[in-house]
Amino acid sequence: MRQLIQNLEESKIRELANEAMGRSDVLAFWFGESDEVTPEFIRRAAIESLERGETFYTHNLGLLELRHAIAKEMSRRHGPLEIGIERIAVTSGGVNALMIACQALISPGDEVVVLTPLWPNLCAQALIMGAKLTSVPLAPTGGAWELDMESLLGALKPSVRLLILNSPNNPTGWTLTRDEQMKILEHCREMGIWVLADEVYENLYYEKTVNGCAPSFLDISRADDSLIVVHSFSKSFLMTGWRLGWMVAPAKILSSIGKLIEFNTSCASLFTQRAGLVALERAHEVTPRVVSHLKSCRDILCNGLKAIEGVELTTPRGGMYAFFKINGHSNSLTVSKKLVQQVGLGVAPGEAFAKESSEWFRWCFASKEPSRLTLGIHRLQEWLHTQAK
Amino acid sequence: MRQLIQNLEESKIRELANEAMGRSDVLAFWFGESDEVTPEFIRRAAIESLERGETFYTHNLGLLELRHAIAKEMSRRHGPLEIGIERIAVTSGGVNALMIACQALISPGDEVVVLTPLWPNLCAQALIMGAKLTSVPLAPTGGAWELDMESLLGALKPSVRLLILNSPNNPTGWTLTRDEQMKILEHCREMGIWVLADEVYENLYYEKTVNGCAPSFLDISRADDSLIVVHSFSKSFLMTGWRLGWMVAPAKILSSIGKLIEFNTSCASLFTQRAGLVALERAHEVTPRVVSHLKSCRDILCNGLKAIEGVELTTPRGGMYAFFKINGHSNSLTVSKKLVQQVGLGVAPGEAFAKESSEWFRWCFASKEPSRLTLGIHRLQEWLHTQAK
Repeated sequence: MRQLIQNLEESKIRELANEAMGRSDVLAFWFGESDEVTPEFIRRAAIESLERGETFYTHNLGLLELRHAIAKEMSRRHGPLEIGIERIAVTSGGVNALMIACQALISPGDEVVVLTPLWPNLCAQALIMGAKLTSVPLAPTGGAWELDMESLLGALKPSVRLLILNSPNNPTGWTLTRDEQMKILEHCREMGIWVLADEVYENLYYEKTVNGCAPSFLDISRADDSLIVVHSFSKSFLMTGWRLGWMVAPAKILSSIGKLIEFNTSCASLFTQRAGLVALERAHEVTPRVVSHLKSCRDILCNGLKAIEGVELTTPRGGMYAFFKINGHSNSLTVSKKLVQQVGLGVAPGEAFAKESSEWFRWCFASKEPSRLTLGIHRLQEWLHTQAK
Repeated sequence: MRQLIQNLEESKIRELANEAMGRSDVLAFWFGESDEVTPEFIRRAAIESLERGETFYTHNLGLLELRHAIAKEMSRRHGPLEIGIERIAVTSGGVNALMIACQALISPGDEVVVLTPLWPNLCAQALIMGAKLTSVPLAPTGGAWELDMESLLGALKPSVRLLILNSPNNPTGWTLTRDEQMKILEHCREMGIWVLADEVYENLYYEKTVNGCAPSFLDISRADDSLIVVHSFSKSFLMTGWRLGWMVAPAKILSSIGKLIEFNTSCASLFTQRAGLVALERAHEVTPRVVSHLKSCRDILCNGLKAIEGVELTTPRGGMYAFFKINGHSNSLTVSKKLVQQVGLGVAPGEAFAKESSEWFRWCFASKEPSRLTLGIHRLQEWLHTQAK
């Protein structure tokens, strides 16, 4: 067993979830997942595929019709330049696309820069492939996390192989501006650095934009830029458990990506891809409703939290998480455990995402019933009240 | 892009399959897949799970009931020692289990020994993780491939980290004997070498044995041996396209395997796992029928091939492939292409598996209709006839 693998941190969120094992009274907001089942018509497409007997291997890069539908959707969101199918690979989930991108790009000892706080999987994947990681921390200014462009560009030296970032960001809600993206892309071009952009939350964006999405590297990049953008069906289509995602990459590396898919999972299940195809074709029946519901969930949660004395947060522009501090309660893992044990409230400790966010908490507001959020807020208040005594 | 990834060979089987693109008259025997749809009751279990709305993330290591069923089945096959669920991880296919095992065990520069000819994915996975590969070739004696124990043990020096082998073997049909397994395991224990055994074909074994399976390392190993055995639902349950497999590993590394699953695919889809559970519970309705059918397919194909002048082969004890030579036609890639183009017969070139098998051909006999095999044999005869003119 590699020492490095043993040393990878066990998820602190899982550690916390274990505290609640066997208890039905816990309101869990710790995972990044809606509690709403995948829409019936999407499930129906997979069921019909199974009934037709589509149980065989399929193309490494994904079903041709699905790749076409993804290319069309990516072009619609990020035109005017067309994004062709020669840049699309279908994967067994967004996380799988990210792992495959790391396998494609990271040789042992390569320098990789990450922007933190960050979903821990992104750091772990690079480490598994033998990367030397440098973390550039975002800085919390008031309740909002901001990028210090100077320290990022300073860290992106010519010796760096790859920059990994996630915007809209899990856990902070921080979202790159167009201006920041242009500076980063320009600099990485000059230095010969690859960019791996996890943009799975791009649809879950609550500001007005032309395409309804958060700013994306695909809006400003050329087809041959050293850029891989990763997407998932999980969040925008309520399809977490399906394990279906995709990447947009330069056409010249697609055949190598196909090889890596062969060596990792061979292909995504065809019946799962049929569900993805219908989800994209009828996206208008799902995503706008999901986003508008999430926006109201966000507002309920953030306004509720802001009304609590001592809670510090900024309403996030994107994603599905409120990220907040509670004055006087700075050990996020200890406090999170107490919240589960004492009032049945499950939030994720900021420690799970970076050292610099160890005093913060992440609360996923993707809740079918917004009343669950209100109840959760009451539990937090109740707990703070007992602490003040 | 890593040079190493670019250098990984594109599948020669895919190269060949591309030759047949758009032709409906080709009899394809090049992929390792039955042409029979997954049994209805297995598909039904996934459909019912989807109807119930089981579309959420599940445990990294797999559904508890499925892990129990796998542990029970592994104990039944490989007792008397019980194999407990603390040694079982469910993965997104056998290939995914193998990749995760490589991530767990191979640090950059580690020496890895492989027995060849071999399914090319096994070498590629080790290379992706930065292994230095040493290949120990099996030797064809007459039509049968045999292990030279002395050269294998000679290659397994204390500096070696890992031995990777696949028995019953794809493509040769070679199968380790109990005696050979004991010698290898004993030696690896002494030298501190891990064994990664791809045993996905263990059920597809045509000799009489107590448990109906090929000899397995699990029959003779201790629970804490440095051994990972990989399995798949693909072959014994006609579930290739589902992407569901498992590994049996020492209990002490299971939590690390769980982390790696999180970073690779997070989990296998729950509805897919429900199908796997029903497949195991009702294995007696599928596997014996599949194996007995494959045995008659094997006999039809091997007897047919043996009757052709100049064809050299031994009937394999296990697996689903006939591996053969044709005197006077030694460039397997060129000949395979001609067979597709000229008589619509699709076999896999031995070149795809190792240098030393470049004069051989692999023919998958997993055919729902045995008449397809007979027709294929006729096409080979027809082609040889035109060549002789």
